[in-house]
Amino acid sequence: MTEHLITVDGARLWQSLMDLAEVGAYDDERTGLRGVNRLALTDADAAGRRLVISWMERAGLTVRVDRMGNIYGRREGTDPGARPALTGSHIDSVATAGAFDGCLGVLGGIEVVRTLNERGITTRRPLEVAVFTEEEGVRFGTDMLGSAVAAGRLSLEYAHALTDRHGVTLGGELARTGFDGPAGERLDPPHAYVECHIEQGPVLAQAGVEIGVVTGVQGISWQEITIHGRAAHAGTTPTELRADAGLAAARVVVHLRAMVDSGAYGELRATVGHLAVHPDLTNIVPARAELTVDLRNPDDAQMARAEEDLAAFLCTLEDDRPGLSVSTRRMARTAHVPFDDGVRKVIAEAAGDHGLAHLSLLSGAGHDAQEIAALCPTAMIFVRGEYDGISHNPREYSTPEACAHGVDVLATTLLRLAGQD
Amino acid sequence: MTEHLITVDGARLWQSLMDLAEVGAYDDERTGLRGVNRLALTDADAAGRRLVISWMERAGLTVRVDRMGNIYGRREGTDPGARPALTGSHIDSVATAGAFDGCLGVLGGIEVVRTLNERGITTRRPLEVAVFTEEEGVRFGTDMLGSAVAAGRLSLEYAHALTDRHGVTLGGELARTGFDGPAGERLDPPHAYVECHIEQGPVLAQAGVEIGVVTGVQGISWQEITIHGRAAHAGTTPTELRADAGLAAARVVVHLRAMVDSGAYGELRATVGHLAVHPDLTNIVPARAELTVDLRNPDDAQMARAEEDLAAFLCTLEDDRPGLSVSTRRMARTAHVPFDDGVRKVIAEAAGDHGLAHLSLLSGAGHDAQEIAALCPTAMIFVRGEYDGISHNPREYSTPEACAHGVDVLATTLLRLAGQD
Repeated sequence: MTEHLITVDGARLWQSLMDLAEVGAYDDERTGLRGVNRLALTDADAAGRRLVISWMERAGLTVRVDRMGNIYGRREGTDPGARPALTGSHIDSVATAGAFDGCLGVLGGIEVVRTLNERGITTRRPLEVAVFTEEEGVRFGTDMLGSAVAAGRLSLEYAHALTDRHGVTLGGELARTGFDGPAGERLDPPHAYVECHIEQGPVLAQAGVEIGVVTGVQGISWQEITIHGRAAHAGTTPTELRADAGLAAARVVVHLRAMVDSGAYGELRATVGHLAVHPDLTNIVPARAELTVDLRNPDDAQMARAEEDLAAFLCTLEDDRPGLSVSTRRMARTAHVPFDDGVRKVIAEAAGDHGLAHLSLLSGAGHDAQEIAALCPTAMIFVRGEYDGISHNPREYSTPEACAHGVDVLATTLLRLAGQD
Repeated sequence: MTEHLITVDGARLWQSLMDLAEVGAYDDERTGLRGVNRLALTDADAAGRRLVISWMERAGLTVRVDRMGNIYGRREGTDPGARPALTGSHIDSVATAGAFDGCLGVLGGIEVVRTLNERGITTRRPLEVAVFTEEEGVRFGTDMLGSAVAAGRLSLEYAHALTDRHGVTLGGELARTGFDGPAGERLDPPHAYVECHIEQGPVLAQAGVEIGVVTGVQGISWQEITIHGRAAHAGTTPTELRADAGLAAARVVVHLRAMVDSGAYGELRATVGHLAVHPDLTNIVPARAELTVDLRNPDDAQMARAEEDLAAFLCTLEDDRPGLSVSTRRMARTAHVPFDDGVRKVIAEAAGDHGLAHLSLLSGAGHDAQEIAALCPTAMIFVRGEYDGISHNPREYSTPEACAHGVDVLATTLLRLAGQD
């Protein structure tokens, strides 16, 4: 297989990443660093899209834009009727982003094409590089939006009608920025999809490993819990007469960690990221508390059990203390998406052939790959990050070497997928 | 002793309370009720002071104002050289107040004088009714301010230099409102001090009792705890690599209740009224948490032990989890102030003679009486409140009967104290 082992130009890849990071760049006061703010379908995002399209065209790709604003750059193969090997990701960002999230997958795909061009390699199957619209979901409220429409999980009408916080519709912004393309939004099933992405976590760095072979995206359950108690004076109200909403919220936080530590829910992760009490005064027992619970689990049955047991715990809070009432609101829920064994094997072998240490891991975050997985065999390549893999932050950083290693593996993986029957 | 049993005009007392509540009244949007906003030395407070002085003068009291703005109305006794029996409280309020906090003690004192006048009773000792400046501490930041200066704990210079949030000095506001009186601010030690006040708690109502004989003011310890952890992505960060500041804060809240429930710290009360996490996003492990701890204890040694054990617990949080650090800031601390057995006995006997059920209880909140207790034998009479004794809120309410009962006991108590050798 080593005849299909190719190495990309890491310096050129890095330069592309840095050039794209200038589009929508801002000076981040909190970190003192230069950050990226390129919310989907803003002027900055449109400028980034135009830059990426110019690079695609210079690399000889045939560019099409679909009605969802998704961009595809195509390189023909020797068998024009064969379904393409697809790669890609997104270039929209959160409001305080770094240079790598999403961009590495898009610019990595273009770098693979440049390298194939230089080597004069033609694949059997066509290659396509995709840029999906509004992966972050920060502006219009639904993440993985472009890929979900391409995969048929969400309709074009639903997506076009979404509005940002100012009431501006996504459909209107597509038209305004000129990205309301003519191509049909439903993607013909590719032969396979592989996406290269930064890990956004510390696992690879902690293990001293270069490459992550992603086994799937874990299930996500988000809910908001509101606890109503009774305001009371801290000095004058006997403990036994209190209905302390803040204390009840704290018990939920502590209980969630106990659930995780018990090991009884498989690989459950639980996070309370938002926690607030009212009236939030030193000498008043909280009348109300609000918290969010973010559960992750690679096993849907274990996830369901964890949710049920949390609900049962919330009932005990009400039962134990007259005057406390608890309500919950579902914010989001996605099932575990397992990736394809065959594509994972190609990635692992490519990493091995490049002499790169690799391990299998689950993605904690959502990615376009979880949508495209509904259409074709899919997997992802993770690249390790510095600073515990911090992301959605200007401190987000992967070294030039780490990025090049990831795209080397992407190149070899795509080459082999595109050579498959 | 029943020859000294007098009953006040409850309807007239109530009318005074309602009239004073019109000064600084506002429509409270949150409760739909009429509230009182009479922050110390504002125009509203000055108008309230003028109204109270007019009532004092109409009741035949000789009014003096000291350099701290404290107002004293004096009724001479048969022995003009004897030290007076003093009563009083405050009429300044928090920004969202009811009609009773403080006002009951001031207007109750005036009602006692009116009643003595009508009955033609002259006491051996003089009687004085005090209105202390800035008891709430909301405008200038130090509570029990006027009584603390009168008792010599704080200096006049310190008080005059205090500023409100707009930088306006208390001394300037005294001059502007005309309450920079000529009398010396240090109060000559009275014979005794008794203050009638609403309970601001649920104990009397829960027990079905009319009158509280206050045994003292419990110690108060306020501190702010800041916990620094590490922000991390909820989906991608393994549990064992987290330094979750929000979880640590929740552990503090739960631990404090366990300390209270253990019974190992006497009559400890613990409240976490303020609790916040940062960045406060659903899918980010909190990097920082901030909480306040309000401890109350009638026993200073038990309080000190509770504070030490809490500090030790905070250390274990740091030890258990690399990456967590905890810092604390002292906000306030006052020792337990025990009230005088003799004055408490007079109050309890007066309540009994009036046929009113009574019980002894500790004050959870601070009062002017805790300052005057440094000068002379002191105790307080508590009047029960509705709605769990809610206070600092337009819903604050004690019935006309409850107010009259409290001032009946105040009248008889003052009469007996003023008759003592």
